[in-house]
Amino acid sequence: MNFHQYHYNGSFQLENGQSLESLTIAYHTAGTINKNKDNIIWVCHALTANSDVFEWWAGLFGENDLFNPNDHFIICANVLGSNYGTTNPLSTNPGTNSPYYRDFPIITIKDMANAHQLLAEHLNIDTIKLLIGGSLGGQQALEFTLLNKVKIDNLVLLATNAVHSPWGIAFNESQRLAIEADATFNDKIEEAGKNGLIAARTIAMLSYRTYSIYEQKQKDDYSVFNDFKASSYQKYQGQKLADRFNAHSYWTLSKAMDSQNIARTKESLEKSLAQISSNTLVIGISSDILFPPSEQKFIAKHIPNAKYVEIESLFGHDGFLIELDELNKILKPFA
Amino acid sequence: MNFHQYHYNGSFQLENGQSLESLTIAYHTAGTINKNKDNIIWVCHALTANSDVFEWWAGLFGENDLFNPNDHFIICANVLGSNYGTTNPLSTNPGTNSPYYRDFPIITIKDMANAHQLLAEHLNIDTIKLLIGGSLGGQQALEFTLLNKVKIDNLVLLATNAVHSPWGIAFNESQRLAIEADATFNDKIEEAGKNGLIAARTIAMLSYRTYSIYEQKQKDDYSVFNDFKASSYQKYQGQKLADRFNAHSYWTLSKAMDSQNIARTKESLEKSLAQISSNTLVIGISSDILFPPSEQKFIAKHIPNAKYVEIESLFGHDGFLIELDELNKILKPFA
Repeated sequence: MNFHQYHYNGSFQLENGQSLESLTIAYHTAGTINKNKDNIIWVCHALTANSDVFEWWAGLFGENDLFNPNDHFIICANVLGSNYGTTNPLSTNPGTNSPYYRDFPIITIKDMANAHQLLAEHLNIDTIKLLIGGSLGGQQALEFTLLNKVKIDNLVLLATNAVHSPWGIAFNESQRLAIEADATFNDKIEEAGKNGLIAARTIAMLSYRTYSIYEQKQKDDYSVFNDFKASSYQKYQGQKLADRFNAHSYWTLSKAMDSQNIARTKESLEKSLAQISSNTLVIGISSDILFPPSEQKFIAKHIPNAKYVEIESLFGHDGFLIELDELNKILKPFA
Repeated sequence: MNFHQYHYNGSFQLENGQSLESLTIAYHTAGTINKNKDNIIWVCHALTANSDVFEWWAGLFGENDLFNPNDHFIICANVLGSNYGTTNPLSTNPGTNSPYYRDFPIITIKDMANAHQLLAEHLNIDTIKLLIGGSLGGQQALEFTLLNKVKIDNLVLLATNAVHSPWGIAFNESQRLAIEADATFNDKIEEAGKNGLIAARTIAMLSYRTYSIYEQKQKDDYSVFNDFKASSYQKYQGQKLADRFNAHSYWTLSKAMDSQNIARTKESLEKSLAQISSNTLVIGISSDILFPPSEQKFIAKHIPNAKYVEIESLFGHDGFLIELDELNKILKPFA
């Protein structure tokens, strides 16, 4: 995919009342928009992903995949707050000429959707053939649709919700507390809070996976009583994330996830969902403990004519990234 | 209940090959042993509890409860490694004349059971009418029974397992990583790692409770987009624990929980369980995600003539402390 950055020099208003003096939006594209402008696939990425969909959703998106640059124009924007090129806590605060760090404002999913809208306008995109996203990506896709500015022909929402649950918020709060327990998080450096971030990622792994998968893949011989595989696995996953991400973006994005509530300024979740006229498919993962299927069933129930499909998987929430055979089957009609 | 301490001046051998030069065991008792010595109820406590059962299991154990000092002699020993009076990381290391802190040895559930055995011998207890414990307490009760020195007439195991799962170990590892992310954990003071401990406890809460209970009790109005109830609840629970516990004991006890494997030095879990001749009842909580019912069913299946009862509860693992009405009904035959 090709990497681009859009520098918007206007003031960008945030839901919390603050504003950013300017905004950079990083995005990847592949393929070209056809004459009828009816081949645009817009992907919204999850918490710690980047905008290179071919990298993290390979097997579904790629040169020879179901969604490919021969048939489609594929676009994904790095979300506001993430450190893959879009304005984030490590960006320079024009007010102080040094990075924001902990002074970066609280952002919401709606702020992310507004940034997507800016980019769509910049690229003269007024109709999207398919808007698709899982987890935090699905939260953005819902809010982006509800802005009601770009016409979304087809909407696919995976392992996501219309309002973030107290359980999900509690999982995020524990992760933020782990980051804050690392006193270096207050240091004005890029590596601030790195050990806290490691711990935070391992907590997230528990919410992304399941008892069964740990049982299947991290079981030790019976002689062991220390240094178990499951411990090493946690440390490995934590370190891997800390090597490519930073605690500030992580903290900020987890707060944004907490903010998900498509009815915050509206009458009810049900009535908000009822306004969506896109052809909608909602996909749940049977074993997802973070965004349980009940949340996707709720969305599908209230979007007119939406369909709900559940993927049987032991992988839990991560199933939306892993169960590629099933996804290829289910998503074929949208290609 | 009455508080006692038993100071054992011999060397206490640990499973990891090291030994403690001496050992103090704190314990609470209520009631008196009757002439036939057939009214002894021995309780094993869970991770962060103390030996005062009337405090944390009130409604089941108390002056006027099912298990009471008129009918029974009730005893509970504070586990090895815990900071409620038994030898633990804040105790003085006789080798250095200062507290152990991070030099405290790795202990196992079997070490805890051996300490219980020492205390039983000290008190001339050779038959227990009922040995009961939940979670880490159930793990000890199993190992204590398998020492095969005291005769256990009745054994009640709640929300526990015969071998700790990779999932459970991963949950504990994340908690330890949160403690270790707090660099003060290396300081040689009692408050070392306090912010890490706060984060760790909040992670544990997620494993003790459920999506449904957070949904029921920590739901906000729709106008909120920051400072959610679920976040405050996590912080409150973390602080509450940190005010009464210390990071060193917590770290040590979580490692001990990981060590649970009744077959470590034996042929198999099944054959180990098959050796138990106590009248055994195993109780599971339907919504327990940390020690899921499958683990208790496994125990009940392999202990000869054991019964399994499942309590329907939304409270998850904590159900074994909360579902007192059900427990009173189920445990009546053992009083």
